[in-house]
Amino acid sequence: MKLLSNLIVRVVKSSVLCLCPKSQLFRGISIASCDFQSEVANWGSKKSHRKVKLHGSFLAQMADPAIETTLAPLRQAVKQQGDLVRQLKADGAPELDVKTAVAELKARKKILEDRELELMPAAATFDRSKMEDLLKRRFFYDQSFAIYGGISGQYDFGPMGCALKANMLTAWRQFFILEEQMLEVDCSILTPECVLQASGHVERFADLMTKDVKSGECFRLDHLIKNSLEKLAAEKTATPELKAECQEICVKLDGMSKEEMAAILKKFNMKSPTTGNDLTEPIEFNLMFATQIGPTGLIKGFLRPETAQGIFVNFKRLLEFNQGKLPFAAAQIGNSFRNEISPRSGLIRVREFTMAEIEHFCDPREKDHPKFVDVRDTQMMLYSACNQMDGQSGKVIAIGDAVASGLVANETLGYFMARIHQFLLKVGIRPDRLRFRQHMGNEMAHYACDCWDAECLTSYGWIECVGCADRSAFDLTQHTNATKVRLAAEKRLPEPKTLDVTEAVPNRPAIGKAFKKDAKAIVESLANLSLSDLQTLENSLNESGSYELPIGEATAKLTKEMVSVKTSSKTVHVEEIIPSVIEPSFGIGRIMYALLEQTFRQRQGDEQRCYFSLPPVVAPLKCSILPLSNNPDFVPFIKKICKSFP
Amino acid sequence: MKLLSNLIVRVVKSSVLCLCPKSQLFRGISIASCDFQSEVANWGSKKSHRKVKLHGSFLAQMADPAIETTLAPLRQAVKQQGDLVRQLKADGAPELDVKTAVAELKARKKILEDRELELMPAAATFDRSKMEDLLKRRFFYDQSFAIYGGISGQYDFGPMGCALKANMLTAWRQFFILEEQMLEVDCSILTPECVLQASGHVERFADLMTKDVKSGECFRLDHLIKNSLEKLAAEKTATPELKAECQEICVKLDGMSKEEMAAILKKFNMKSPTTGNDLTEPIEFNLMFATQIGPTGLIKGFLRPETAQGIFVNFKRLLEFNQGKLPFAAAQIGNSFRNEISPRSGLIRVREFTMAEIEHFCDPREKDHPKFVDVRDTQMMLYSACNQMDGQSGKVIAIGDAVASGLVANETLGYFMARIHQFLLKVGIRPDRLRFRQHMGNEMAHYACDCWDAECLTSYGWIECVGCADRSAFDLTQHTNATKVRLAAEKRLPEPKTLDVTEAVPNRPAIGKAFKKDAKAIVESLANLSLSDLQTLENSLNESGSYELPIGEATAKLTKEMVSVKTSSKTVHVEEIIPSVIEPSFGIGRIMYALLEQTFRQRQGDEQRCYFSLPPVVAPLKCSILPLSNNPDFVPFIKKICKSFP
Repeated sequence: MKLLSNLIVRVVKSSVLCLCPKSQLFRGISIASCDFQSEVANWGSKKSHRKVKLHGSFLAQMADPAIETTLAPLRQAVKQQGDLVRQLKADGAPELDVKTAVAELKARKKILEDRELELMPAAATFDRSKMEDLLKRRFFYDQSFAIYGGISGQYDFGPMGCALKANMLTAWRQFFILEEQMLEVDCSILTPECVLQASGHVERFADLMTKDVKSGECFRLDHLIKNSLEKLAAEKTATPELKAECQEICVKLDGMSKEEMAAILKKFNMKSPTTGNDLTEPIEFNLMFATQIGPTGLIKGFLRPETAQGIFVNFKRLLEFNQGKLPFAAAQIGNSFRNEISPRSGLIRVREFTMAEIEHFCDPREKDHPKFVDVRDTQMMLYSACNQMDGQSGKVIAIGDAVASGLVANETLGYFMARIHQFLLKVGIRPDRLRFRQHMGNEMAHYACDCWDAECLTSYGWIECVGCADRSAFDLTQHTNATKVRLAAEKRLPEPKTLDVTEAVPNRPAIGKAFKKDAKAIVESLANLSLSDLQTLENSLNESGSYELPIGEATAKLTKEMVSVKTSSKTVHVEEIIPSVIEPSFGIGRIMYALLEQTFRQRQGDEQRCYFSLPPVVAPLKCSILPLSNNPDFVPFIKKICKSFP
Repeated sequence: MKLLSNLIVRVVKSSVLCLCPKSQLFRGISIASCDFQSEVANWGSKKSHRKVKLHGSFLAQMADPAIETTLAPLRQAVKQQGDLVRQLKADGAPELDVKTAVAELKARKKILEDRELELMPAAATFDRSKMEDLLKRRFFYDQSFAIYGGISGQYDFGPMGCALKANMLTAWRQFFILEEQMLEVDCSILTPECVLQASGHVERFADLMTKDVKSGECFRLDHLIKNSLEKLAAEKTATPELKAECQEICVKLDGMSKEEMAAILKKFNMKSPTTGNDLTEPIEFNLMFATQIGPTGLIKGFLRPETAQGIFVNFKRLLEFNQGKLPFAAAQIGNSFRNEISPRSGLIRVREFTMAEIEHFCDPREKDHPKFVDVRDTQMMLYSACNQMDGQSGKVIAIGDAVASGLVANETLGYFMARIHQFLLKVGIRPDRLRFRQHMGNEMAHYACDCWDAECLTSYGWIECVGCADRSAFDLTQHTNATKVRLAAEKRLPEPKTLDVTEAVPNRPAIGKAFKKDAKAIVESLANLSLSDLQTLENSLNESGSYELPIGEATAKLTKEMVSVKTSSKTVHVEEIIPSVIEPSFGIGRIMYALLEQTFRQRQGDEQRCYFSLPPVVAPLKCSILPLSNNPDFVPFIKKICKSFP
């Protein structure tokens, strides 16, 4: 049951590539402003739209010189704009100028990629409706609660889909957790608000939407603006100036603020596309499902939007479990929930999905990896930020070379990228439809050092299936600040260090006598003074004999009798480290969808008979025992054969 | 790593047995009125309370004649009351009298069981606090979000707990789904309100609570009444009459209505136990977590309180997958959520938990099972409703005999009970701390025919770990009624049947002309007339030439020209069946907890060193490779050995 390698298919225009997909896997923080995905209009409603073509043999085709000649001017246009962006950044140009230039860069990249895919010779046609019929008929998955009318963005997996998923998770657990001796956890889905406030999700995990003022119907703002401008530009009466304006806005939409979008809504007097009613001002809609925990209604909670936070809040326990030593990795498989405004594209954008996430904690100064040597020859298609800015396609390169040249930030990140690559091939993703795309500076969450998405090519374009980011110390720092529990590791110094330690030494009885119940706050405040505060304190005591210590909004006058400043030398054997986190994050449903598309086959000469050519490791059925006759005499033998299988 | 069989431990008074535990597994419908569980007061707050003893070698000890002599009068008292209940039921006595008699019966049963457990010779002491220290230290599980203060009723599983759980689920999948060729599904957790309205959860899945009027603190009503009456009765000033009254109320609390409990709150002028403030009237608190699906806020949804409904709403797809044939079983492993008012007892009563549920669909008239022959010699401890009413303990009996005698309702139910028994032993539950307790008539949900709970003995008493119920056609009927989608199977008749079919034959053009837009409702209404309605229709047409058909609140006058009644004979080859459902429902967390208690060991002569003696099939660590020296020369060999393990 090896994968067929001679299947050639291609993509046509109707399926627009996503250069910068609204990440369903990646942290919420940078999400609201990076949606650049175009999707087939009316997908699902018009059968005729469903027959889309997929390009195949991607790598081989790219080398065709005739094709390269056609693409050259487009590549050049991207490169010019990429150089402009670099120049603007180097000159420290105003942020808005950079944004505008980046938007234009993305638009040019999109034109290039569309053209690239168009030029692939069509050899086979991928028939999405046929595949979806097969998925329904064999009950891989189907819409949840369909007998009640169904809920969009929710799917139930049937026996085949469930077995495929279970096999994939077993393979994942074996490949990552067991082979790498990771610490697996299984944490609560219901999460109190304070945790997600610290992680930034309460404030920033939102999409912009607008509502029909009468019917209350909701629209994702960027989708609505784009669709309505495209419609406007397509009208017969549209002037060339109007067309150009519409196109320009669509290109720049991605980087626009709430206010800019509101102005566009107003300028074009946009209405609800379904009723023609007025629309509200843009609203920030948080994508988390809210509920109350406990009967009082006072503990606000959310369904987790990712599994990662469960690992971060357990960091101390996990570190202890690992006997206090760095590096170590923790992993979690489980469901997460996002209340998408308009879920679509089958399993790709859903409200409830299974993730498998790894958090590898390490010393920020030691990001080498002992097993990197085992993977360094892995050949992978890397589509770097630089390639993207220069209008080039991805390059196949050994991960060892990518790390050596600095393209990939460090060995640990490179190691996980290679392992992700190996895992995806193991479960059946085709190497020629898999690439690692680096986030460009402006897409990356502000705390991340480097981020590469494993993208699989489907009839919806390249979709992000696994994110792999170096998240630095962001999360642990946030939770430390919120809880005052230090989420840090101690590291033995190669040799003890002698440090000068300056501290305020309070005379507790004197302070207690003078300030009564406020004494505790004063002593705490003294303990938290910075080095410069301590110098000010010392100077003030020496000069005037007293010091005004700010306590909340008041101050407390401290005298020489109450406090002194002392400097002593201390020998320390350990140093405290807030670990860096490297995070590979797998969207299991997306990998399954890409795999199903990539392994879908129609029998030659009998195209009504379709099947999936899945590798044995994930195939739902490994083996069938089929009696040639219904003769009851066979039954005991069949039973015996069945029992002999493990 | 076989289980040690010579460990003898016992239970003492402080841990009261639960005769009729508030089922966390069983359907919500009958829950609100069946809580009879007593738990150790202040559990978790006072270390001294934590040292409880567990009886061991349960079966062997029961045979001791000296013990039986002591217990005889108590058994007699239960039997007398059991006979009274039977008599009342036979005489058709008023419901309230039966309820009162049943409450007294339960109280006597409780006294008997307490005494039974007290009389066990103590040979070893189970130290719960030691076990909990070990669970924390080795990070089996611990409170979720502890660095944020924690949320009660939510736990995170660490590497050891997670591996134990994953192994248990793998074993379950192998033992049930693969061996029995069940259809596994994986359905959505977020469930729209309409589905849970049909299942009865929106209306009836509730507990009674009361709130502190000032602080808003919530109390489960039955717990509050019980605790405050016990406190009252323990006061020095309490008269014998008051004591007797308090005791009587506590005994009857289980069967009381909301109004009766409200009257008690008032009579004793009960206040908040923590603040002394007034309390509100009793409130029905639905135990489901509510949220909104989608951005409009209009689709109300809940987190599923059980996984079963996902299977029922997929019945048609599953039946098709099984090529329309009965019987078949579907299964699902997944998380469910219940917003407990006061979660406690570690993993036993939690807000988020993993279930594994099976729904076996079969012809209601064919509940025999082809594989029953394979299990009929399985010896199990059955604690029948009859035993419970007669004051006897459970009896060890072969499941084949239990089905033959009618004690267990049918082969399929018996087959699953035996398989549950085998599975629990396989994962390490001790046979002498496992029993199957039959629900008594008054505990059973109204739609269930027979129900047996697999209960494991722990320091909290006997806890329900698996429910096994014959749920008849209740769920499919409910969803059919709500959706008008017939969730039924067709069964080929042994030979075709000729049936007389009487139906109303509408003259559509005439009706359409006369009633315009109401015509459709009239035709539909005619199609749904019962046989007796049809006779009335026919008579009325014959006698008066017309008929008044009720349509909503109005009527439509139909004439002979518009409708006639015809009887014809039809040959049918199939009949329609609404399948019965047999449902084994596993609480994975509860099984894990019981298993951990039952396999907890302290080393002889070194009681600080504790461990779990888990069978290999579920043990988190199967094997350790421990180098005897840190010499780096060993490293390559260790690596090689490690790699050689699968």
